[in-house]
Amino acid sequence: MVKIKERILDKIDSPDDLKKLNPEDLPGLCGELREFIIDKVSVNPGHLGASLGVVELTVALHYVFNTPYDLLVWDVGHQAYGHKILTGRRDTFYTNRKFNGISGFPKRNESEYDSFGVGHASTSISAALGMAVASELKNEDDRKIVAIIGDGAMTGGMAFEALNNAGASKSDLLIILNDNNMAIDPNAGVIGQYLIKISKSETYNKVKNDIWEVLGKLDGFGKTTRKFIQKNQHALKNVLLSGNNLFEAFNFRYFGPIDGHDVVYLTSVLNDLKEIPGPKLLHIITKKGKGFIQAEINQTKYHAPGLFDRNTGQILPDDCSYKGNTKFQNVFGETLLELAEMNEKIVGITPAMPTGCCMNLMIEKMPHRTFDVGIAEQHAVTFAAGLATQGLIPFCNIYSSFMQRAYDQVIHDVAIQNLHVVFCLDRGGLVGEDGPTHHGVFDIAYMRNIPNMIVSAPMDETELRNMMYTAQLKEVNAPFSIRYPRGCGMSVDWKKPFEKLETGKGRQLSEGTDLAILTIGKSGIIARQALEMIKAGNISAAHYDMRFVKPLDEELLKEVFKKFSHVITVEDGVIQGGFGSAVLEFMAEQGFSAKVKVLGIPDRFIEHGTQDDLYKECGIDADGIFKAATDILGR
Amino acid sequence: MVKIKERILDKIDSPDDLKKLNPEDLPGLCGELREFIIDKVSVNPGHLGASLGVVELTVALHYVFNTPYDLLVWDVGHQAYGHKILTGRRDTFYTNRKFNGISGFPKRNESEYDSFGVGHASTSISAALGMAVASELKNEDDRKIVAIIGDGAMTGGMAFEALNNAGASKSDLLIILNDNNMAIDPNAGVIGQYLIKISKSETYNKVKNDIWEVLGKLDGFGKTTRKFIQKNQHALKNVLLSGNNLFEAFNFRYFGPIDGHDVVYLTSVLNDLKEIPGPKLLHIITKKGKGFIQAEINQTKYHAPGLFDRNTGQILPDDCSYKGNTKFQNVFGETLLELAEMNEKIVGITPAMPTGCCMNLMIEKMPHRTFDVGIAEQHAVTFAAGLATQGLIPFCNIYSSFMQRAYDQVIHDVAIQNLHVVFCLDRGGLVGEDGPTHHGVFDIAYMRNIPNMIVSAPMDETELRNMMYTAQLKEVNAPFSIRYPRGCGMSVDWKKPFEKLETGKGRQLSEGTDLAILTIGKSGIIARQALEMIKAGNISAAHYDMRFVKPLDEELLKEVFKKFSHVITVEDGVIQGGFGSAVLEFMAEQGFSAKVKVLGIPDRFIEHGTQDDLYKECGIDADGIFKAATDILGR
Repeated sequence: MVKIKERILDKIDSPDDLKKLNPEDLPGLCGELREFIIDKVSVNPGHLGASLGVVELTVALHYVFNTPYDLLVWDVGHQAYGHKILTGRRDTFYTNRKFNGISGFPKRNESEYDSFGVGHASTSISAALGMAVASELKNEDDRKIVAIIGDGAMTGGMAFEALNNAGASKSDLLIILNDNNMAIDPNAGVIGQYLIKISKSETYNKVKNDIWEVLGKLDGFGKTTRKFIQKNQHALKNVLLSGNNLFEAFNFRYFGPIDGHDVVYLTSVLNDLKEIPGPKLLHIITKKGKGFIQAEINQTKYHAPGLFDRNTGQILPDDCSYKGNTKFQNVFGETLLELAEMNEKIVGITPAMPTGCCMNLMIEKMPHRTFDVGIAEQHAVTFAAGLATQGLIPFCNIYSSFMQRAYDQVIHDVAIQNLHVVFCLDRGGLVGEDGPTHHGVFDIAYMRNIPNMIVSAPMDETELRNMMYTAQLKEVNAPFSIRYPRGCGMSVDWKKPFEKLETGKGRQLSEGTDLAILTIGKSGIIARQALEMIKAGNISAAHYDMRFVKPLDEELLKEVFKKFSHVITVEDGVIQGGFGSAVLEFMAEQGFSAKVKVLGIPDRFIEHGTQDDLYKECGIDADGIFKAATDILGR
Repeated sequence: MVKIKERILDKIDSPDDLKKLNPEDLPGLCGELREFIIDKVSVNPGHLGASLGVVELTVALHYVFNTPYDLLVWDVGHQAYGHKILTGRRDTFYTNRKFNGISGFPKRNESEYDSFGVGHASTSISAALGMAVASELKNEDDRKIVAIIGDGAMTGGMAFEALNNAGASKSDLLIILNDNNMAIDPNAGVIGQYLIKISKSETYNKVKNDIWEVLGKLDGFGKTTRKFIQKNQHALKNVLLSGNNLFEAFNFRYFGPIDGHDVVYLTSVLNDLKEIPGPKLLHIITKKGKGFIQAEINQTKYHAPGLFDRNTGQILPDDCSYKGNTKFQNVFGETLLELAEMNEKIVGITPAMPTGCCMNLMIEKMPHRTFDVGIAEQHAVTFAAGLATQGLIPFCNIYSSFMQRAYDQVIHDVAIQNLHVVFCLDRGGLVGEDGPTHHGVFDIAYMRNIPNMIVSAPMDETELRNMMYTAQLKEVNAPFSIRYPRGCGMSVDWKKPFEKLETGKGRQLSEGTDLAILTIGKSGIIARQALEMIKAGNISAAHYDMRFVKPLDEELLKEVFKKFSHVITVEDGVIQGGFGSAVLEFMAEQGFSAKVKVLGIPDRFIEHGTQDDLYKECGIDADGIFKAATDILGR
């Protein structure tokens, strides 16, 4: 019997095991880790490209640093699969992103190695600085803190806020800038270009060489290196700061750029940097998708490819395309382009999500009227406001959970000035496998309390299309928010001629006598399924799709409360302050009384799983609505 | 009869009048404008120092640029008094910040010269880029766009997001960096230091001289300058970019630094820069408070000094200190210091508001445990989260309206991870004269929909003190938000021994039989005044101070709804999704029915005026509560 060669990876149950390896074993381990990730992600979809790009970095970090005492802070977290696998989650990795399985992102309550939960971009430097300052205050001077941030995330403003603070603080903090010149799409803006420039610059290569030479000499001093550096601070500074780049302007010592795929060299550099005090940045060059040729070539597509053939790389059809249905995202993308062809005032803005939201369709045809502004939601919104002051009509597409980043700009720069900006909130409601950081469940509540804002949520593809058409009409002349869900719609025949929807008007979809079900957005589709069960249970329920959370259709609501003493509201959003709450406010204001059951997301963070798993958990699936109907009538 | 010398300023009704002046008249006009501002602000309080610092810049901009066709975007807007006075608002300037008077900030619906409404920091580059891009799309190539931003506002992340986008866009945009090395307090972080460094650097002075020399030559070309520059782009670039600073890293052409108080030189430089295409930045050095010696010396105090003696500079006592009362801000500052002395885990964080929120008391005593992170709310919150992961208890003080900037970080970095961060939301509710950009009216609604978050609003000074004490107790171990109002408290004797408040428990303040009044926060004080009127009107009203919006005191509410069929809720916050809405949700959930009137801020932006003016306007003053009580009972 031929014995199968044992994998090193199988013996790595924690970073302690990793540290037992010889440096020359590390490249082999990296190869195994990469294959492991490709194998698993091909059959259990997740984020592929980012994790493949940092295999060597991940191994080097856990090899050099004393984790979990030393703290690694991964920005965004798409790239942390290798980290998870090396820190005790190899054997549960097959449950990645599944209901009750491990999270697709670092998560504090999942592992002591996950020092900070992530999902949104650009938080790592702030969090790591907090940790570094805390260590100082607690006199834990030996603790090392490392933030790992991509060049995409470096376009987020809060990363600069953190640099401004960290550079002045002198805290012992290492930032690793993982430069692959990509966000999910190619990195937008100057910073990406700048990094290429300094990577290729001879001056920088010279500085780099000087630094390594100095470090090489220091290395001989062993334990006393730190003391040496402190004594020779000034001389060193002259060497280290003889260049003057963006990061040095922020008082960070800049090292690099170096090859992020040379694991042995990486470990030696990280070992050197451990001994350098203060804020410092190591610039490494990596390739997103490294080691899986299709992912290297088509980096955006393989960022999160879904199921794919492990051998050929071929991406397999997802449920939606398999059924011949269209995703809401495609409806948005195609409709935006159509509208932009009709109305020359329309411009498109996306903060680094052109492919994700399908604005790439408009970008291809109308590059001058579309703007990928980088991972920069705040700027995206105020930039839109600036455009709107000059009479243009920006369609600003931001995922619901990312729009939380621009809440002030929506209020302060758009709504107070009553500017005609159309906010398209993609991925509204429970998003599924990405979990609590990405669920877009707060937007109905946080948008409806903003004066001047029109708040809508179309129920299906046709409604989305018509809502977008309505939102760009000149007569609207106010901020207009349209939220729609992640994923697949229901009907195939959505591409009909545009129809204007009356702002603030809902519609009755079916008649009934026992109770009224008021829905907003996609919950209307689910309610329609529930209505069949309800009917079968001999309950006669009327169904109203309200279309608008604000202005509420007061006329229609008056009709409802005059006719019904039992009402259920359903939304794919938080109960606290949401659509149901708006209905209750109307009721109180108008002096109506009825028994009202508000269905929505309860007051806790919902974990990951399929959307259907999560709807069920929150009681906003068809069963939940059916149960609410029988409960409210006491049957 | 001696004729009083005529002021030039009296003849300036618009920038057209300004343009008729000879350059040599400009210094005189600047002097007059400065005196005018000092005169008016001494008797009608407002923002003094910032406007004094940009008198010359303001005159130069309107002299050189073709406003309002050319667009000036003032960041923050504290500095725009001179702009207002020169653009037709000289004779109404005495109404500045008064109810129905002109706004203290640029405001689009006040003047065609106010291209963009402001109040919060760091928005100008984004807005100006939007305008520049719009002008390109509309083929209005002759329109010039200028953003004027201070070095303080440059610490806000969205300014960097905008630089990243603008530098890549090649749009014709001039940023004027008004460098006075101050925010309201001294500018925190690296950027301020960096600007000093480049101002003093010989390299930069050399580059600067080169540039002016080139520009001088170009000037001779007159109308053809642009063509010349386009032809000689490459050679010019070498000269202009021979330095390599922070802004050049963002593809901006950097000019300066120059003296921002030399109005004639400023006009000549601005004239030159008008002809240079693409993104460019002019660095000017100014002094905050320039020309009023006390304001130059004590820049923070004279940022917005209140009433002061125009001759001696002496600041006059405000109403609060006159009455011997304490501001909520002082209660916060003193209490924080006391708590920090008791509990070594407490650290303080403020985004550039140490004096405004009174954290300066702790900063003086405990500089290592307090952090002014710059105008950087996003970073402030995530930095706090990082500290909390290591067992510290950060008190993160952010004005309610500025916390809108960090909404995502509160959700994503603190609440999802259930970290023990105490958010102190200063200036909750209507703030008065600063108007709609600064009213802190959304926080109850936007905080209460966040899972894990404890949402409180103490009614008076003693309650604030005890709430802060409660929030830092180890057993809390969750995010805890405390909102309190701007300005003066009611009682003088607030400094009593600490008392623990039970989380999620309200209190009954007075008994009654006809109706219940439920209040949150300072509205409780106003309700107490109303109760006297209500009693006099022969209505017996019970008063409950709920203390917590979340968790709601369900036990107490059950008692209320069992006993009363008429309930009024009062809050100094938006009705949509606010405290009253939470009470309605509870009622629906529990199946109670009662007539409930929700008092709060209606669904429109409230303008500026005194707090009392605005409470009255919104019906949340004592009269409004009294009226609601008689209305709800039908009397």
